[in-house]
Amino acid sequence: MAAKRLIILGSTGSIGTATLDLVAEFPEAFEVVGLAAGRGGDAFERQIRRVRPRVASVSTIEEADRLRARLGDVGVEILGGPGAAAVVAAQADGDLVVSAIVGAAGLVPTLAAIRAGKPIALANKETLVMAGALVTAEAARCGVAILPIDSEHSAIFQALGGQRAQDVRRVILTASGGPFWDLPRRRLDRVTREDALRHPTWSMGPKITIDSATLMNKGLEVIEAHWLFGLPAERIDVVIHRQSVVHSLVEFCDGSMLAQMGIADMRGPISYALAHPARLPLRLPPLDLAARGTLTFEPPDPGRFPCLGYGYAALKAGGTAPAVLNAANEEAVAAFLDGRIGFPAIAETIERVLGQSSTRQARTLDDILLADGWARAEARRVLGRGEAGHGEARIRTGDEVSA
Amino acid sequence: MAAKRLIILGSTGSIGTATLDLVAEFPEAFEVVGLAAGRGGDAFERQIRRVRPRVASVSTIEEADRLRARLGDVGVEILGGPGAAAVVAAQADGDLVVSAIVGAAGLVPTLAAIRAGKPIALANKETLVMAGALVTAEAARCGVAILPIDSEHSAIFQALGGQRAQDVRRVILTASGGPFWDLPRRRLDRVTREDALRHPTWSMGPKITIDSATLMNKGLEVIEAHWLFGLPAERIDVVIHRQSVVHSLVEFCDGSMLAQMGIADMRGPISYALAHPARLPLRLPPLDLAARGTLTFEPPDPGRFPCLGYGYAALKAGGTAPAVLNAANEEAVAAFLDGRIGFPAIAETIERVLGQSSTRQARTLDDILLADGWARAEARRVLGRGEAGHGEARIRTGDEVSA
Repeated sequence: MAAKRLIILGSTGSIGTATLDLVAEFPEAFEVVGLAAGRGGDAFERQIRRVRPRVASVSTIEEADRLRARLGDVGVEILGGPGAAAVVAAQADGDLVVSAIVGAAGLVPTLAAIRAGKPIALANKETLVMAGALVTAEAARCGVAILPIDSEHSAIFQALGGQRAQDVRRVILTASGGPFWDLPRRRLDRVTREDALRHPTWSMGPKITIDSATLMNKGLEVIEAHWLFGLPAERIDVVIHRQSVVHSLVEFCDGSMLAQMGIADMRGPISYALAHPARLPLRLPPLDLAARGTLTFEPPDPGRFPCLGYGYAALKAGGTAPAVLNAANEEAVAAFLDGRIGFPAIAETIERVLGQSSTRQARTLDDILLADGWARAEARRVLGRGEAGHGEARIRTGDEVSA
Repeated sequence: MAAKRLIILGSTGSIGTATLDLVAEFPEAFEVVGLAAGRGGDAFERQIRRVRPRVASVSTIEEADRLRARLGDVGVEILGGPGAAAVVAAQADGDLVVSAIVGAAGLVPTLAAIRAGKPIALANKETLVMAGALVTAEAARCGVAILPIDSEHSAIFQALGGQRAQDVRRVILTASGGPFWDLPRRRLDRVTREDALRHPTWSMGPKITIDSATLMNKGLEVIEAHWLFGLPAERIDVVIHRQSVVHSLVEFCDGSMLAQMGIADMRGPISYALAHPARLPLRLPPLDLAARGTLTFEPPDPGRFPCLGYGYAALKAGGTAPAVLNAANEEAVAAFLDGRIGFPAIAETIERVLGQSSTRQARTLDDILLADGWARAEARRVLGRGEAGHGEARIRTGDEVSA
């Protein structure tokens, strides 16, 4: 079998580097033909020298010039600028695009790959959160499969294999609860950036680790699950499972559930998306249930962790609401990581921005990027004025929308 | 879609009655054309009056005569005698045979159904334990599917759906541990029949409930799993899981596991076998993981519960060893249920009979029935002489055997 030719968007992030580890472990199975990274630092230069893709991109022209100068001895085409990742994503010789750019920046290149007819291994959940209707319609039009890399959605995707879609009653996403699950509400005021970055079970990038601490991550995943599996919000549930052993579950109409389990290592779901429908013989330690001993399950707590509820509300509001949610969250998390706001102000900022927004239809990329831009500006305004913290805003769900 | 025409062997037992409940709940999906029961008591007469099969059987000619006299007003053909169940099993108009006769008596009629080309929904594990090589070879020759009803094997069957067989690393059967899991060894001497029949999670017939208490059930299921899924003994593991929520698991080569979960109700696995590849919208209470709270997993304990190890040993010995194991167990369990021996003597009887036996090839039904007969006689001899209790015998594994 010929090696699968991969294009990796976001190759220096946590998913990108784990993907390159897998490529190195299975050289007969994979070959890398394109890489895209935000900045052209040393890590990216080393990746390019190691895997020798045909083309690589960074997000500015200046970075591209610098990288080109440093890589004169390597026969790699270097692209730069805001559209460069999309060009890499649509390269003719790619068989599969790993979409692992963090945040909203991943949307446009992922859509470019879909329009070029390439199957997507999707780690960038913002693509579906912001533009689920558009992206899934384009994927259907282009006959492109979207294979989830998020561990929860990979779990559901694995459990759904060979089952009839009409027999699915609901899916249940598991959530670790993050580092603050056991803290009382009043203590959440005083947690630090470092506390929040100490995830109990998963090793991930900083943005998604903060999202885990607020449970916004689970809110975004509910929206993602809606688009990946075609289920309404009321058929997507969340259960807190501190051990991150059960990665998610599917319940069928006969009451039977299939759960996917494993150790908390992203190489599992990444390899499943890369090799699907085959599985790779990974050298990971097996999950020893008898040694683990106990698995626990608890209901979510909307009082202390309101962000999960915002995810459901935005999904139900439809249209541009999820894009607004996502943009407000990205701005608030950046402010928290910069030390500008405390932990509870993340949720409060999101709530205020959602409360100020009017939900509009999200038919085109322009609709979505406009809503994204508006929400970022509004979030910065809220953050600048120190408005978060009053907690009176409610999400406005425009009746005019039919997502 | 035309209703599936069922033949139910063992219709008055716990699986048989649950199957008839499902037929009553889904009259468009199923129709019953044949019933077989051991005795023709009131329960069987009521079943015949309710479902009006074309043919029904009991195990003696005298019982058949009595039943025929009582059912003169019903146009049902009544057969009697030792071969009658096999005749019912092979009826031309049956689409699927539910094999739910308890114990070794289920083997011959199940084999008759396979030879008549009928797919089997298999609850009678003795069919595969005693004659796995013969039965699976015949099923392959006749192009007949064997759909497991045992909850553990149904779980594995469900988890394997849509997965590639070559990606399976191992299967893990869960065991509730039965009513005596928490008792120290010395207390096992004093447990009663009533204690043993009080299963913590499943409601089943008396024979299988005692097998759960000794963990012999799990030993038989290891052998059954070997034949159903084509895996060697070292790729079939057992974990104690007291809550009976996870019904079993499959581990793949990438370390990922799929577990099937649900409430402990046999209508789940029965309906899956009946409706496969569809699922029936059962009216069972859903499994609420957050309400359950905690799931636990422990390693087996061969010291207190040696019968699981006898299952592995018989599987590795091959040939007639599993048939001997099964026959010795049936005799010992019957003696325990009759109050003739104490609980630890069940395992001791099995160990002595296995220790006395020579493993032979199991090529034909005769080979198997001969070994079954020998083992029963030997078990009765051991039980009669009160020989169990010395615990010095070891299983002889003949080198001459290549199962």
